[in-house]
Amino acid sequence: MRMVDLITKKRDRGELTNDELTWMIEQYTAGKIPDYQMSAFLMAVYFNGMTDAERNHFAFAMLHSGDVLDLSEIPGIKVDKHSTGGVGDKISIPLAPLVACLGVPVPMISGRGLGHTGGTLDKLESIPGFNVTETEAEFKKQVQTIHEAIVSASREVAPADRRIYALRDVTGTVESIPLIAGSIMSKKLASGTNALVFDVKVGNGAFMKTIKDARALAKALVSISKSAGVKSVALLTDMNQPLGITIGNSLEIAESIAVLKNRGPRDVHDLTVALAAQMLVLGGKAPNLEIASGLAEDALRDGRALSAFKQLIQAQGGDPAVVDDPRKLPQAKYRIPVTADESGVVDQIDTNALGLAAMQLGGGRAKKDDVLDLAVGLVLHKKLGTPVSKGDTLVMLHTDTKNVADIVGLVQKAYHIGSSTPKKSPLIYEIIRP
Amino acid sequence: MRMVDLITKKRDRGELTNDELTWMIEQYTAGKIPDYQMSAFLMAVYFNGMTDAERNHFAFAMLHSGDVLDLSEIPGIKVDKHSTGGVGDKISIPLAPLVACLGVPVPMISGRGLGHTGGTLDKLESIPGFNVTETEAEFKKQVQTIHEAIVSASREVAPADRRIYALRDVTGTVESIPLIAGSIMSKKLASGTNALVFDVKVGNGAFMKTIKDARALAKALVSISKSAGVKSVALLTDMNQPLGITIGNSLEIAESIAVLKNRGPRDVHDLTVALAAQMLVLGGKAPNLEIASGLAEDALRDGRALSAFKQLIQAQGGDPAVVDDPRKLPQAKYRIPVTADESGVVDQIDTNALGLAAMQLGGGRAKKDDVLDLAVGLVLHKKLGTPVSKGDTLVMLHTDTKNVADIVGLVQKAYHIGSSTPKKSPLIYEIIRP
Repeated sequence: MRMVDLITKKRDRGELTNDELTWMIEQYTAGKIPDYQMSAFLMAVYFNGMTDAERNHFAFAMLHSGDVLDLSEIPGIKVDKHSTGGVGDKISIPLAPLVACLGVPVPMISGRGLGHTGGTLDKLESIPGFNVTETEAEFKKQVQTIHEAIVSASREVAPADRRIYALRDVTGTVESIPLIAGSIMSKKLASGTNALVFDVKVGNGAFMKTIKDARALAKALVSISKSAGVKSVALLTDMNQPLGITIGNSLEIAESIAVLKNRGPRDVHDLTVALAAQMLVLGGKAPNLEIASGLAEDALRDGRALSAFKQLIQAQGGDPAVVDDPRKLPQAKYRIPVTADESGVVDQIDTNALGLAAMQLGGGRAKKDDVLDLAVGLVLHKKLGTPVSKGDTLVMLHTDTKNVADIVGLVQKAYHIGSSTPKKSPLIYEIIRP
Repeated sequence: MRMVDLITKKRDRGELTNDELTWMIEQYTAGKIPDYQMSAFLMAVYFNGMTDAERNHFAFAMLHSGDVLDLSEIPGIKVDKHSTGGVGDKISIPLAPLVACLGVPVPMISGRGLGHTGGTLDKLESIPGFNVTETEAEFKKQVQTIHEAIVSASREVAPADRRIYALRDVTGTVESIPLIAGSIMSKKLASGTNALVFDVKVGNGAFMKTIKDARALAKALVSISKSAGVKSVALLTDMNQPLGITIGNSLEIAESIAVLKNRGPRDVHDLTVALAAQMLVLGGKAPNLEIASGLAEDALRDGRALSAFKQLIQAQGGDPAVVDDPRKLPQAKYRIPVTADESGVVDQIDTNALGLAAMQLGGGRAKKDDVLDLAVGLVLHKKLGTPVSKGDTLVMLHTDTKNVADIVGLVQKAYHIGSSTPKKSPLIYEIIRP
């Protein structure tokens, strides 16, 4: 087999066989296929796409380039959630304890933030002492004991994906649905979960800008899951404004605690319950979504979910006192308001720009090895559809430096104030099943 | 400027500016843009093409990555010919002396064979003593003195093209008209010629299989020439069977000598005269093609072209006695006939296969550093439209080993014998001007 022949086959709209894809990924992982051939292949995929069979096998080949966890010794249907990434998306944090306290094991292997999106692991690390590094044995034991764990990958997950992902970033081949789906699934299936709920973000703060693209990605994700024997469902959810009212690591933990105390912002509450309901149904703990939602609402109301969060923190070495007193989380030195320069109604928010503003405050990474300031971030005082008067605070910056004129300008520009109330987007656009 | 942005621009059908293309080629030549970005760019070009302006500037940028000869000290309009490569295409060898003897300086910088096509330099080296390596000063002096020289490039011509060409070969990005045209022109313009005649081959032994593709390439070549201030014309000529009756280095020299003695095969004679006429008109030696053809026919008839070939051989250190006695050229040990296994009419020849057969005999290179056997090759006893009886010799293999059963089979399979005379293809399909 020669890589140039596989490139040419894809270029000419041929369908690669499983054997060809397996060979390609094995040889590439072994360093026997050079990057310059892989990048030409990726560009051909960008233009010609992949068939469903190719896409699914490509994902499996990347998955098996690394270690795959075996969670079969843990009883029950293990269910995980994956979000394609948004701004202010802290849902995993209230979600894992909520679902776990209802008896579904949640083995979450999460990531860190990059660019305009934050990462669950970074957020959790703003809890003093919280440790996201566990051995495989520790991870399994914790999921078995308290039904939840949120950790970083302990071994090398899908090394082929890691290299291909880095290559795509510098060769203009990021925006390809089969490649995006393959990258997500090669990592997500490595956790050994039995079921997956996907939260596919769509809007100006998401990688997918249109319902059409988001739907295509969602279909790819559930199709790959199905062919891997993993039950799944995907929700297309709105990302035309940040989720909730905070962007930034410790700020989002505080907001997550509020949600677990059943007094969080409506959108975060509703999305947490909606995703929990799907997980409960997939996990066999409820016969339908209505009953599942009721279970979740009850667990938020009566404090079981909150307790489960304390358990999670304790199990991973953190200080559970932050739950009762969120002021124990890192606090920024200064609060600097960004005010409206005209009166009207907030009718558009550049969500991506708000994510970048949080990053520039020090709360996110431009490069992989940037060190974070976990205390900083944005608190949104106004969201879409809210009337404002000139001079009102739109956003409160939590910052450790006063030198933020550029960021104030960026945030002010991200808010568009119009004369009429915009059409309200639904929180959940569609539900995609395999 | 970032390469990833230029890749993305081309991927999204944007038009790259001259500055962007110049930067890209300079950085790539300097090793500052990695191959994996260039190959992704080339694949994007494969799919989206280039505008005329992009294509022309891309060629110039590659041209100026290396040295460009200045022939202005040589009086007269210098005219060169370029063939896109075929099987049995020895035209340059009789053509250069024919045109030179009529007063047009012909500064030919030629190449070597690869794959199924032979190279002019290899063929000339089958003349004992013939030297294709000259200094720039020697080359200029020879063109000035005898109006002709056929040499290899003395300095590094278009290093960017050399690297990009090698990259295309292994990344499935060979078959792209703007890239092919850019590669040809970046090398061809480096000789400093004032005018160019292109022989664009079309058919089953050529890189361009269809008139449509050949026409597109021809248009690209004359367009790039025009924007470089070089006069040109392109002929689309037939390559659905080998040119003439020989394939192989010394065999083709013998055939070229026959043409210069005015007793060569009709097709080689006619194409040589047709190309010579175009060169004479571009070189200002004839007012039109009719008069130019007459001049060329005269020079072949009265021996001036033959004398000019002796002069060329002498000037480059070869033994001109081969002209009077071609048996002084290297001779293969064995002659092994390939015979017809049925009776009928030759109605199709797989020209590419015959080129590969000559290569497998040792007359051509599969890899760049293969050493050639200059004596071996094929002599065609039957060409398209010729009636044959079972057992007739189709091709005589000239070989230095008797172990050629595979090659006999390959050649036999390359001849298709049918029941009726095929439609005769014209030798010249079209003439393309800027």
